[in-house]
Amino acid sequence: MSARRARIGLLGCGVVGSGFVELLARERDRIAARHGVTLDLGRILIRDGEKVRTHSTPAIFTTNALDVLDDCNCDVVVELVGGVDCAGAYVRRAIRNGRDVVTANKALLATTGRELFDDANRRGVALGFEASVCGAIPIISALGRGLAGDSVTSIRGILNGTSNYILSRMEDGMAFDDALRRAQECGFAEADPSMDVDGVDAAQKLRILASLAFDDEIVSAEVVGIRGVSRESIARARSEGCVIRHVATATRSAGGVTLRVEPIVLTNTDPLARVRDEQNAVVVNGRAAGELLFFGRGAGSMPTAAAVLSDVIDIATKRRADL
Amino acid sequence: MSARRARIGLLGCGVVGSGFVELLARERDRIAARHGVTLDLGRILIRDGEKVRTHSTPAIFTTNALDVLDDCNCDVVVELVGGVDCAGAYVRRAIRNGRDVVTANKALLATTGRELFDDANRRGVALGFEASVCGAIPIISALGRGLAGDSVTSIRGILNGTSNYILSRMEDGMAFDDALRRAQECGFAEADPSMDVDGVDAAQKLRILASLAFDDEIVSAEVVGIRGVSRESIARARSEGCVIRHVATATRSAGGVTLRVEPIVLTNTDPLARVRDEQNAVVVNGRAAGELLFFGRGAGSMPTAAAVLSDVIDIATKRRADL
Repeated sequence: MSARRARIGLLGCGVVGSGFVELLARERDRIAARHGVTLDLGRILIRDGEKVRTHSTPAIFTTNALDVLDDCNCDVVVELVGGVDCAGAYVRRAIRNGRDVVTANKALLATTGRELFDDANRRGVALGFEASVCGAIPIISALGRGLAGDSVTSIRGILNGTSNYILSRMEDGMAFDDALRRAQECGFAEADPSMDVDGVDAAQKLRILASLAFDDEIVSAEVVGIRGVSRESIARARSEGCVIRHVATATRSAGGVTLRVEPIVLTNTDPLARVRDEQNAVVVNGRAAGELLFFGRGAGSMPTAAAVLSDVIDIATKRRADL
Repeated sequence: MSARRARIGLLGCGVVGSGFVELLARERDRIAARHGVTLDLGRILIRDGEKVRTHSTPAIFTTNALDVLDDCNCDVVVELVGGVDCAGAYVRRAIRNGRDVVTANKALLATTGRELFDDANRRGVALGFEASVCGAIPIISALGRGLAGDSVTSIRGILNGTSNYILSRMEDGMAFDDALRRAQECGFAEADPSMDVDGVDAAQKLRILASLAFDDEIVSAEVVGIRGVSRESIARARSEGCVIRHVATATRSAGGVTLRVEPIVLTNTDPLARVRDEQNAVVVNGRAAGELLFFGRGAGSMPTAAAVLSDVIDIATKRRADL
């Protein structure tokens, strides 16, 4: 296997970005030996005045995104700044410059994903997004490739670790506000907690999964958060051998695809009932494959970084095959 | 997206093969629309005198493997004859002829996989094998791609549906022999049941997973079947809040990789304890990703066919990208 190099430009060095830098440094030699591609870190965009942890890489930090996006030696741009406006402009420019792109940005994909994928297809570049849904669980690849030969009939999942963590703590008797604060202290709540507890984050992820699983249009989307869930209702469910979970569901019917995110009472035999704390889980039903379940850590620095890096490797090894 | 065609030669039209033909007929239009590749079925190898179900395809059945292997219009050869000797000769010839190959043959890969992958690499063709382990669960892709950026520390799984089905029935009070007969009636036992109950099948699958997950050599492999598990030991475990499962484990230590297949007493909180009947499950621990769980149907005509077809699509769309 002839060695090849690929240079990565990194946009954003926060929680996931610094995890990515750490993981790449740790796994770089193994990846080169196993996958035949040596991954080099190029320029890294940081926020103005951001504290930069000391990384053992020769990469040069910059506060100017163009240093990353217009670096003509860069092969893959990894977008980890989050948000929609800046991130969208960065990704579009990277694609226009002919760079492959990897992003963990579910909000960006849920809002302008179709346009970005069209851009990427036209330009002949890849747009990897495994990390955008359920962190380290390879659910994007499972739906896009593993189930490519089957017709998916439904998807059901616990897609937001924070709301599941809050419901788990409320099961232990904690009040909603205290549970939310605890989730924030643990570092896996979104900066704006309403994205988690009102179901917006889960709805964005569900939209991405549905676009992979179904060919039909989305005809309705209903989102109910967990603020209305009381400790009393949780205790009542428990006394009946049930739990309350914040469940995202996508189903296909004759009219099209229906999306729904809502707190639901589940019996203890439901696989989603067993998902506790910040865990994520997805149940996919395929017409031929039957029921498939995926469980794992849906957020956090290292699990998300692992998903980003697997996309980078996949893209870099494909480019190698093209040569 | 420009339409492309890929022609499939099929070796074997038994349980999985006929499922594959049925699934392809059902999903062909959707695959063409979604993935931009029209999959045509070429020649199909059947056993001499085999009853051929009426398929609504223009494919021509043959009892001569060379009609499939030397068909110069064939792009992908799907090997579903099983066994090692004939199947190995077929796969090697298909590779030598420059065909991409998809196989569900775990025995073949466990015994001569390295040689076949070397052949495929040299010839520049793909060798897909998602269906060889755990049917529709995309565990091959998860280990080979989804976790490519992470170091796997251990794999634990219930990889043989028949032995798990037998243990589940024995939990219900059935004797071993009756449970085995029931599994055979259900159609998911191997032709030779000793492959299932003595752990050989699980050990072959574990070897394939370990080769994907670990770079180190396998230094020891121990296989204990389930014939020694008594109804009394199952009842005793149950009285202590435990179950007995046939667990395949691969762990990495300083010396290398250790494989072990054996009946183990698991507490009810273990995710593998919840796997009942003919279900399969795999728990993968990644250093960055943490614990990931995959559950689903590990065998059967349609789940296995779905995995085969996803490999065919993956290979055919990649070839399209190469053009």
